[in-house]
Amino acid sequence: MSVQRVETVVIVGVGLIGGSFALAAKRAGRVGRVIGVGRSEKNLRRALELGVIDEASQDVAAACSAADLVLVATPVGQMARVFDAIAPVLPAHAIVTDAGSTKGDVVALMRAHLPSHLARCVPAHPIAGSDLSGAAAAQYGLYENRKVVITPLVETAPDAAELVAELWRACGANVHQMGPDEHDAVFATVSHLPHLLAFAYVGMVADKPDAVRCFDFAATGFRDFTRIAGSHPEMWRDISLANRDALLAELARYRANLDALTRLVEAGAADELNDFFEHAREARVAWHQRFLRNS
Amino acid sequence: MSVQRVETVVIVGVGLIGGSFALAAKRAGRVGRVIGVGRSEKNLRRALELGVIDEASQDVAAACSAADLVLVATPVGQMARVFDAIAPVLPAHAIVTDAGSTKGDVVALMRAHLPSHLARCVPAHPIAGSDLSGAAAAQYGLYENRKVVITPLVETAPDAAELVAELWRACGANVHQMGPDEHDAVFATVSHLPHLLAFAYVGMVADKPDAVRCFDFAATGFRDFTRIAGSHPEMWRDISLANRDALLAELARYRANLDALTRLVEAGAADELNDFFEHAREARVAWHQRFLRNS
Repeated sequence: MSVQRVETVVIVGVGLIGGSFALAAKRAGRVGRVIGVGRSEKNLRRALELGVIDEASQDVAAACSAADLVLVATPVGQMARVFDAIAPVLPAHAIVTDAGSTKGDVVALMRAHLPSHLARCVPAHPIAGSDLSGAAAAQYGLYENRKVVITPLVETAPDAAELVAELWRACGANVHQMGPDEHDAVFATVSHLPHLLAFAYVGMVADKPDAVRCFDFAATGFRDFTRIAGSHPEMWRDISLANRDALLAELARYRANLDALTRLVEAGAADELNDFFEHAREARVAWHQRFLRNS
Repeated sequence: MSVQRVETVVIVGVGLIGGSFALAAKRAGRVGRVIGVGRSEKNLRRALELGVIDEASQDVAAACSAADLVLVATPVGQMARVFDAIAPVLPAHAIVTDAGSTKGDVVALMRAHLPSHLARCVPAHPIAGSDLSGAAAAQYGLYENRKVVITPLVETAPDAAELVAELWRACGANVHQMGPDEHDAVFATVSHLPHLLAFAYVGMVADKPDAVRCFDFAATGFRDFTRIAGSHPEMWRDISLANRDALLAELARYRANLDALTRLVEAGAADELNDFFEHAREARVAWHQRFLRNS
């Protein structure tokens, strides 16, 4: 199993995530040919030029009719349409996996749109976000030492889950398994909430009457804090819709803490402000040391 | 004037900011000897070992009695004590400047504690924040292409303001001039607010019952968004107190925008969410292109 090779892989959505998977899996010798499917002819042409894919197609059904594995790496909002299109033509043995940032909704979509294929469905989330997008952003090594979370269905056949896990390991990733709800709660906290906080911040600055002057004096702290506000709007729209409940809980929790901090500023409460900042700083420093050790 | 050399410079607070100024100004040949003053004997010893300072002192008055220029690079909360200590001993020609992140309060402190010395007072803010601190963090080149904002008093003698500007230019910085209130409003927006937002976010995550599991799956987006939450608590306590009014206005403005975004998530308003994210993304991308061109 550990040296199994997948002959025909179809990547639906040849961007940073799907393209980097194709590059890494091909270099590891785990994949025969890669067919890239996408809406943008220009992006597919670029992917061919860069050697990210071997063939290009704008017809997802035709491409998937010969697939051994389909990786749906589109925004989650497009997945229903993709699953519907491929359901009638998918070979019985073909594995369907994805790279969505939310998992509860992908599980629901697979149940709704691929009901007779669930044994071969392996929902997955490679954690390698970036503000870059498109095939030109695809890169070798993107998944080195990154985490991939797999959330199999109860119907998923163990060999299908294991093959997907193996492919990701071949790309350099560490594979973890959890339930879709647990996944979505954890990522609402550590990824979805900060993205929304950063979007709200940059939008607020941009709307100020003195925005130009403000931006002029923004420096490296601003740069790092706002990097994720350069992310793909459509993707974050879909994540916000898909993980709505967990995200609203996190937004409420954040707002309560920001309100508490605002009250300390209002009151000019020096010691409490110091404690508030020290508490956060200690947690950040401890986290970062662990992060550096593990990456 | 442009090749003027300052014989004796006293740096009060030999950390990243003061230490890097000493290194750069000495390398540019603009400074004779540098006396470092600080609370921590260990930090001063390290500064001597690293060649950041030429002499060390824990007696700020004694050190400043022979100064041609004093750079107060302590947290703003310590400046009243420093100004009081040096007021009786400062040579009449000695320039007093600072590196505080807020300027309205420093202007007020200079007026209150150095009333007979205002012609030689030059409030300044080098914009080179970092989550690093201590003399060991001092580095050559920290100010290359960075901005320094000078907010002279009406009493400040032009030659004093020009000398401070010249020294910063010799360190590689671009010098700007504005009023203290304008300075504090701009930096409340682009620096102070995001620091508080990041502290509030990390504190919130750290307080969650599943914090350990959440931190385990935090990745590069989290890393960059939270970097500034590793900053110096005392410094940010002082900034929060000093720039309270402008900061409260920004907190209210941010909260209004976050509330608007929260309502879009609640309503599942797909198009409006897309527009909200797209608006922020466009502003971030445009800002970043300008930032890269200028740095």
